[in-house]
Amino acid sequence: MTSHSGVLFRVATFGESHGGGVGVVVDGCPPRLAVSLDAIQADLDRRRPGQSRLVTQRDESDQVEVLSGLHQGYSTGTPIALLVRNNDQNSGAYEHLAELYRPSHADFTYDAKYGIRTIAGGGRASARETIGRVAGGSIARQLLATACGIEVLAWVSSIHTIDAGAEIDSATVTLAQVESDPTRCPSPTHAAAMTEAIEQARRNGDSLGGIVTCVARRVPPGLGEPVFDKLEADLAKAILSLPASRGIEFGAGFGATTMTGREHNDPFAPGEHGQPRTTSNHSGGIQGGISNGADIVLRVAFKPTGTIAAEQETVTRSGESTTVSAKGRHDPCVLPRAIPLVEAAVCLTLADHLLRQRATDFLPEVPPEVASISARHTP
Amino acid sequence: MTSHSGVLFRVATFGESHGGGVGVVVDGCPPRLAVSLDAIQADLDRRRPGQSRLVTQRDESDQVEVLSGLHQGYSTGTPIALLVRNNDQNSGAYEHLAELYRPSHADFTYDAKYGIRTIAGGGRASARETIGRVAGGSIARQLLATACGIEVLAWVSSIHTIDAGAEIDSATVTLAQVESDPTRCPSPTHAAAMTEAIEQARRNGDSLGGIVTCVARRVPPGLGEPVFDKLEADLAKAILSLPASRGIEFGAGFGATTMTGREHNDPFAPGEHGQPRTTSNHSGGIQGGISNGADIVLRVAFKPTGTIAAEQETVTRSGESTTVSAKGRHDPCVLPRAIPLVEAAVCLTLADHLLRQRATDFLPEVPPEVASISARHTP
Amino acid sequence: MTSHSGVLFRVATFGESHGGGVGVVVDGCPPRLAVSLDAIQADLDRRRPGQSRLVTQRDESDQVEVLSGLHQGYSTGTPIALLVRNNDQNSGAYEHLAELYRPSHADFTYDAKYGIRTIAGGGRASARETIGRVAGGSIARQLLATACGIEVLAWVSSIHTIDAGAEIDSATVTLAQVESDPTRCPSPTHAAAMTEAIEQARRNGDSLGGIVTCVARRVPPGLGEPVFDKLEADLAKAILSLPASRGIEFGAGFGATTMTGREHNDPFAPGEHGQPRTTSNHSGGIQGGISNGADIVLRVAFKPTGTIAAEQETVTRSGESTTVSAKGRHDPCVLPRAIPLVEAAVCLTLADHLLRQRATDFLPEVPPEVASISARHTP
Amino acid sequence: MTSHSGVLFRVATFGESHGGGVGVVVDGCPPRLAVSLDAIQADLDRRRPGQSRLVTQRDESDQVEVLSGLHQGYSTGTPIALLVRNNDQNSGAYEHLAELYRPSHADFTYDAKYGIRTIAGGGRASARETIGRVAGGSIARQLLATACGIEVLAWVSSIHTIDAGAEIDSATVTLAQVESDPTRCPSPTHAAAMTEAIEQARRNGDSLGGIVTCVARRVPPGLGEPVFDKLEADLAKAILSLPASRGIEFGAGFGATTMTGREHNDPFAPGEHGQPRTTSNHSGGIQGGISNGADIVLRVAFKPTGTIAAEQETVTRSGESTTVSAKGRHDPCVLPRAIPLVEAAVCLTLADHLLRQRATDFLPEVPPEVASISARHTP
Repeated sequence: MTSHSGVLFRVATFGESHGGGVGVVVDGCPPRLAVSLDAIQADLDRRRPGQSRLVTQRDESDQVEVLSGLHQGYSTGTPIALLVRNNDQNSGAYEHLAELYRPSHADFTYDAKYGIRTIAGGGRASARETIGRVAGGSIARQLLATACGIEVLAWVSSIHTIDAGAEIDSATVTLAQVESDPTRCPSPTHAAAMTEAIEQARRNGDSLGGIVTCVARRVPPGLGEPVFDKLEADLAKAILSLPASRGIEFGAGFGATTMTGREHNDPFAPGEHGQPRTTSNHSGGIQGGISNGADIVLRVAFKPTGTIAAEQETVTRSGESTTVSAKGRHDPCVLPRAIPLVEAAVCLTLADHLLRQRATDFLPEVPPEVASISARHTP
Repeated sequence: MTSHSGVLFRVATFGESHGGGVGVVVDGCPPRLAVSLDAIQADLDRRRPGQSRLVTQRDESDQVEVLSGLHQGYSTGTPIALLVRNNDQNSGAYEHLAELYRPSHADFTYDAKYGIRTIAGGGRASARETIGRVAGGSIARQLLATACGIEVLAWVSSIHTIDAGAEIDSATVTLAQVESDPTRCPSPTHAAAMTEAIEQARRNGDSLGGIVTCVARRVPPGLGEPVFDKLEADLAKAILSLPASRGIEFGAGFGATTMTGREHNDPFAPGEHGQPRTTSNHSGGIQGGISNGADIVLRVAFKPTGTIAAEQETVTRSGESTTVSAKGRHDPCVLPRAIPLVEAAVCLTLADHLLRQRATDFLPEVPPEVASISARHTP
Repeated sequence: MTSHSGVLFRVATFGESHGGGVGVVVDGCPPRLAVSLDAIQADLDRRRPGQSRLVTQRDESDQVEVLSGLHQGYSTGTPIALLVRNNDQNSGAYEHLAELYRPSHADFTYDAKYGIRTIAGGGRASARETIGRVAGGSIARQLLATACGIEVLAWVSSIHTIDAGAEIDSATVTLAQVESDPTRCPSPTHAAAMTEAIEQARRNGDSLGGIVTCVARRVPPGLGEPVFDKLEADLAKAILSLPASRGIEFGAGFGATTMTGREHNDPFAPGEHGQPRTTSNHSGGIQGGISNGADIVLRVAFKPTGTIAAEQETVTRSGESTTVSAKGRHDPCVLPRAIPLVEAAVCLTLADHLLRQRATDFLPEVPPEVASISARHTP
Repeated sequence: MTSHSGVLFRVATFGESHGGGVGVVVDGCPPRLAVSLDAIQADLDRRRPGQSRLVTQRDESDQVEVLSGLHQGYSTGTPIALLVRNNDQNSGAYEHLAELYRPSHADFTYDAKYGIRTIAGGGRASARETIGRVAGGSIARQLLATACGIEVLAWVSSIHTIDAGAEIDSATVTLAQVESDPTRCPSPTHAAAMTEAIEQARRNGDSLGGIVTCVARRVPPGLGEPVFDKLEADLAKAILSLPASRGIEFGAGFGATTMTGREHNDPFAPGEHGQPRTTSNHSGGIQGGISNGADIVLRVAFKPTGTIAAEQETVTRSGESTTVSAKGRHDPCVLPRAIPLVEAAVCLTLADHLLRQRATDFLPEVPPEVASISARHTP
């Protein structure tokens, strides 16, 4: 129950930061999908530590191995199992953490839940768990592109108080722009300021959070379910299951609360192929839980990294006061590496809903006189 | 797939605004729970239209009928089916909506998804669907109280630009305070201003949104799952599946993005019974996806109601430009009636995770030398 | 968890023999399906007691009411809730059963599981629970017929030692033949003998079991999943969840255990439209968990009814020896009424797998050089 | 969707006969379970080819590697991933099968479902897939033993017409007796005859099927759900998802159809600790879908192996008539190797239901005056 997600396009991740490896089983991928291992590896490389001075310098090569489910470059319809070996086995680096609880980590809550935990590297709470999601998400991304031309793109829009949000047009920003700077902020001036802020935080033994914006383009109208599995509900679940995420908003989001209905409502106008389009997108591409064909736009709040070099108050496992300071290599800011995670969460959710919609949308149209005014059902 | 929620404590809602009725099947409620029908009816009454001048004046008595699953006031362990009949059958009031798409409603997206829809009252997208959730959530609330003494309480903290958030202490606010004003804002001065703003919006043919805050108290540490089913992830899904919700944040939320790690981290200190407690609660009671024993605190953004009397641009089903203005009785602000919905979503989620945790937490403690430093697993 | 079934075409049943009523919520039915309420009622009437002298004479009219999900005779894609009221409220008839455990009933096991039970009418273990399945199964049947022309037909092939199996050709038997006799055995001579045996059993205060055979015709090849959700696995689960069922076999079934591979294997021969067909059907239409286009044929063992008028040894709830004899109206043989249950179980399972297959079968064909010899996957 | 099983104790298997390997992710195992890798390996060794002259002589060492989820010999509560590498990469042996459909194999149905398949070794339809189930089932077995002392034991009771069923007492047969002969038939005289029959079948280029009986001892009363997830329903699904299984029966099974109610009903008598016991066990330990504390007894029909050396009629992928004869090493009878599969299926199902029951069985007893006669629920 702990590690499965999806109704039809399903992923099950496994693995801790130390031990044999981490990975994912993707179950439900349609057969006959051309799957590029290079594309999976590229997404993993974007998540990997050590890409730049901004992020942790651990050397994790994170080479993906396909255990099953692909055949001559195509999916067979059976489970695709992907494994990434762990290389970094210096578990001694964590010995001093065995008997205390790091503030704002999962140390205490894992003990409360399980009564046992693997200390080294944070165990299952390690960011390495997300390798499985990114690998699975990359396959979902390839499915979305092949089936509908859907594109999912995320970027850093703010770090701490440096907010590039107003500078970046979600309708036009490109992957190349995002990848042009290690911060993954596509506004070069803001990226420079963010770099400086992150390096300053590192020098201070401190850490920073920020906001990631994500857009999904060319999502066909009709994806999502009207009640519990609304599209934004499933997206929110996928995003809020990412480490360090603390909030999510769609379209105008929290800003919608200070708008009036007149300001917030998205008028419809005639669009291409007789399909209506909205002339604004405060709804963020989803209405009544279902995609309306406009760009899906969402923003995610990430807290500052919990692991900091500065000394903090805490308690031991036996309940006595103590202090702790992080040693070793740590990200002072996870935002740049969170980009592929957010994209993976969105891709996995959209792929699942794409299959769900295909499952039921095949009967012919009803006669025109139906689908008008409701009548009491019972004869 | 559209209308089920939960792994162990499961609800399935059914019903449209018109037709035979709406309701819920609660499957998985533990046997031998004393269930008060009065408490269910009380929660439904808080959701009901017509409670005050602030909300829509439709007369919906919403009397709940128990079809199955209870026996002399106790749950039997079998499905609890609850039915609320529809009384308001004036479907003619919706005839003019059959051939156009109301902006920021589900009219177009339902057509895109289903190719057929029941126009009257919004069909399945009607707020009446939430009756089933509130009824099911009320049973969940009774389970949480009986099993752990958990209390879930929500209130209106802002409407439009009137923000009472800073005035209300989530640790101490009471149900009586929330229910003392029709706005369900426990700050009397803000409540008065909110009332005035809502009435002004109604006079303008406009509508307002706002923010609901919710707290869950006395949640034991250890609820939640570490990966996809993190507690905040499942809460976010439940909340973002509520009509008109556009965002959610936990603890410091989006505000965490402008804090540093040093500021945001919640230090541990010795607590009662040898259990650690945090001296701040920026994490909102959840760390690593699992409850830590502190109050769970979350905030939800609701957009302004889509239905407004003012004239708006839109298109017909056949793709031609037209305009629409809402007629009849509508809420200019859903926030006061959203309170029991938010509470229901939180109660349903916590009840499910409570059962999930009980399912696996029964083996004896491991020897003290285990649960320390990880070693490579394979012999 | 107790009362849901299906991945995409889902049903949740509710209700006990006494109380407000029994019913079903069908979630996941594709929109735009023409749904005949008369057909649902006809299936319910086949399940209803009092159809003939052979079965219990209780007067249960079992009129179905549609609460939601249909609109002018078409499914809307939202949950279809169906309710059948209970009329028979003479719970006093069960008073003497409150303090003892009837042999081979669920009385003791419900107490062991729940610690509470509704005595009257067997509560949730009552055969009335199956009303919801039959109603949901009838909708599934209409979907299968509309989408693929699939026909599902069951009949009584044996009662006690009277075995009509060899007389009935599963490839050609018709609904009219099955319905021509109250026994639902399409061999008239066997039907007469079965009638006599059942009436004799009633006179003896005893009861009889037997075997139901079911065929599903025109199932397209490709339905079913290769591992846990094999088509026969899901069919077996659905069938073995019917009251009084004790075994199931597919194709040659237990008889296959005394055949050799040479005898049992189904040779392929060229079929219509270039599609292979098998020249025998020992596999019962399923190979490797997936339908092969031949008729699916299965046989179900039903035990003799547990409720008998003869006196039996048992114990009280407090553990003391006592005896019990059934009073009132009871079926001496459930087989005739089990026919619509078996059909419903098969229809629900096939509908679910039909949607599952449609969800993933949409990508274009792979190049001919692929899908030949496997190579090691990793580059 | 294809490869997951279980609600709380969940397994996801992956892998084909050729490629990187096969394995399982066990998700939901309670934390703090002492897990013996030796016991897992022992169960895998019982499944392995090459154990005796009776079964296929391929050399598959099938060494299990733990990738995650265990820590110093205990489960951590997080996913346990187990991998068994493939060693046998002679895919050329299958080249001649690429363009035809073997009778009674999954070749055609996989093509019908997926439009692509990995020919070598049968791909996902290979018996190697069951390695994951056996490994996961071994962990389930250890959980059942630790939590309740449950023992699950299966044996070969018949092969072709050699039926040892009447000789073997399911209440007393031991693992040592079963393992004392390569046939896994605990009756030595029948085992000798079976050995001869299997060797004769091999010489004839033919194959044999048979029946496996399985008993689960010391299952506490109360496991199972009353409607769709009846204990026998979930057991039937697990068993009928095993390769080559064609039928299942519980207790008296198909034999119950020729008994009367008076003969078949299991009388209750006072048992130990005030708990009733049945004086016969025609119900096979399950009544109303829920375990009653007696031994669970089930019998499984396995068809003769599809792969035979004798020449058979079939068609090519392009629909032309041809013939095929199996080459290489094949089991003339899978029954001895099916024993650990049947046990694994039963263990996985029981472990899931054990957790499900623990999830909801915690509220105190109801007052004695409740749980007696039902009354109409609604006030």
